[in-house]
Amino acid sequence: MTYCAALRLRDGMVFAADSRTNAGVDHISIFRKMHIFEQSRQRFIVALSSGNLATAQSVVSLLNKRAAEHDVRRSVHHVDSMFEVAMLVGDTLREVIAHNSESKVGEKPGRRVDFGASFIVGGQIAGEQQRLFLVYPEGNFIEATEDTPYFQIGEIKYGKPILDRVIRFDTPILQATQCTLISFDSTLRSNLSVGMPIDLLILPPDTLEPSCRLRITEEDNYFRELSRAWEAGLKELLSQLPLPPADIGHLATGV
Amino acid sequence: MTYCAALRLRDGMVFAADSRTNAGVDHISIFRKMHIFEQSRQRFIVALSSGNLATAQSVVSLLNKRAAEHDVRRSVHHVDSMFEVAMLVGDTLREVIAHNSESKVGEKPGRRVDFGASFIVGGQIAGEQQRLFLVYPEGNFIEATEDTPYFQIGEIKYGKPILDRVIRFDTPILQATQCTLISFDSTLRSNLSVGMPIDLLILPPDTLEPSCRLRITEEDNYFRELSRAWEAGLKELLSQLPLPPADIGHLATGV
Repeated sequence: MTYCAALRLRDGMVFAADSRTNAGVDHISIFRKMHIFEQSRQRFIVALSSGNLATAQSVVSLLNKRAAEHDVRRSVHHVDSMFEVAMLVGDTLREVIAHNSESKVGEKPGRRVDFGASFIVGGQIAGEQQRLFLVYPEGNFIEATEDTPYFQIGEIKYGKPILDRVIRFDTPILQATQCTLISFDSTLRSNLSVGMPIDLLILPPDTLEPSCRLRITEEDNYFRELSRAWEAGLKELLSQLPLPPADIGHLATGV
Repeated sequence: MTYCAALRLRDGMVFAADSRTNAGVDHISIFRKMHIFEQSRQRFIVALSSGNLATAQSVVSLLNKRAAEHDVRRSVHHVDSMFEVAMLVGDTLREVIAHNSESKVGEKPGRRVDFGASFIVGGQIAGEQQRLFLVYPEGNFIEATEDTPYFQIGEIKYGKPILDRVIRFDTPILQATQCTLISFDSTLRSNLSVGMPIDLLILPPDTLEPSCRLRITEEDNYFRELSRAWEAGLKELLSQLPLPPADIGHLATGV
């Protein structure tokens, strides 16, 4: 599986993706799930992928190929808005899934391969604000708003409570980055199919280039210290919280 | 959906279950998912259920019926060990699922109903130690050990990281209960299909009767205070954790 999260806040955008893929527990590899399309001072676009790896890679390859070919209407380097970028990603995703699902060659009895994949696509094109989209395997998509300023794909549940509690549109960017990394720490701990390194990118508004573009490995001092302090802090916090009253049973209303 | 968790620790057992069921967002009801089979001073058995509600209810009804009929080999009141209780639950579950899946009557085109359900079954029979089992829809089951002293069913992911971090076989029972309720708080917050009240039961070793048997509603003072203090404490903790260095991008190894 995969865990990716992206935030669009007043102060800018944060993108993070793990890099583990697995086809069974004995077939684990590292693959980049953060894909970047940039044109100096013109546009900076990030796509995070989860789901079928072959599908996700094909989509990115096709997007790159069409951009390189100046296929104007199908190039992420040429379309006028992030909305059109999201449409391109959605259409390309639909095209790849349809192509792969068409043939039944190699299919084992009773085992349908799921060719589906999802993308988070965001960034900024000069003249527009920053925008963030979640693209479904069906090719349709939704956009992040001030009310719902972040998206997750892949193994989203372990790391969702902390984002739900903390992330608001006006959360400062370094705090939001810290919270995102904690969300990854919880997920890494509870699900073996999500693994280090973590690709992290921070995109301030209107600069059209990232202020941070980092691959966080297990040796990263900041991540190690954050993870250690979070674990220790949680245990300390729990020890300070009220315990159930020892006579909790005597208050029973009856189950 | 559902969220249930159960722990078997040195100090005793903790069982907790939410009580929301939904068939679509416009069809939400309260149903008990904690089922109790008790014989004074002889045995105390708790079953938690998730999955198809009709299946889970049928299993419990059949277990109760066969116990009342003194159907000795199929009665949770008569079999000699918790292992046999788990087998009874598994066999009954398999029987109900097979019966419901047999007929295709009422089936809508392209929409197979999932009749599956899972159970956590645990407790104590006089002469045995406390034991805890997770019963799969296929009717087979696994037993909790000192290494893995708890099970969850239903929407398990939101509340798993905190249990993974905290619960050990020798965690004191009130702390374990606190941690279980926090695990519920995180799940309730992030998933609408899990809802209050929470049924909570604590079973000390060898007493064969619970020290706590409580339905925790939204008005419960302890749960409200715990939830509030946890939220406030998390925010305080986050504010104390190291922020990413402001020059985090300058350390970049390149993504």
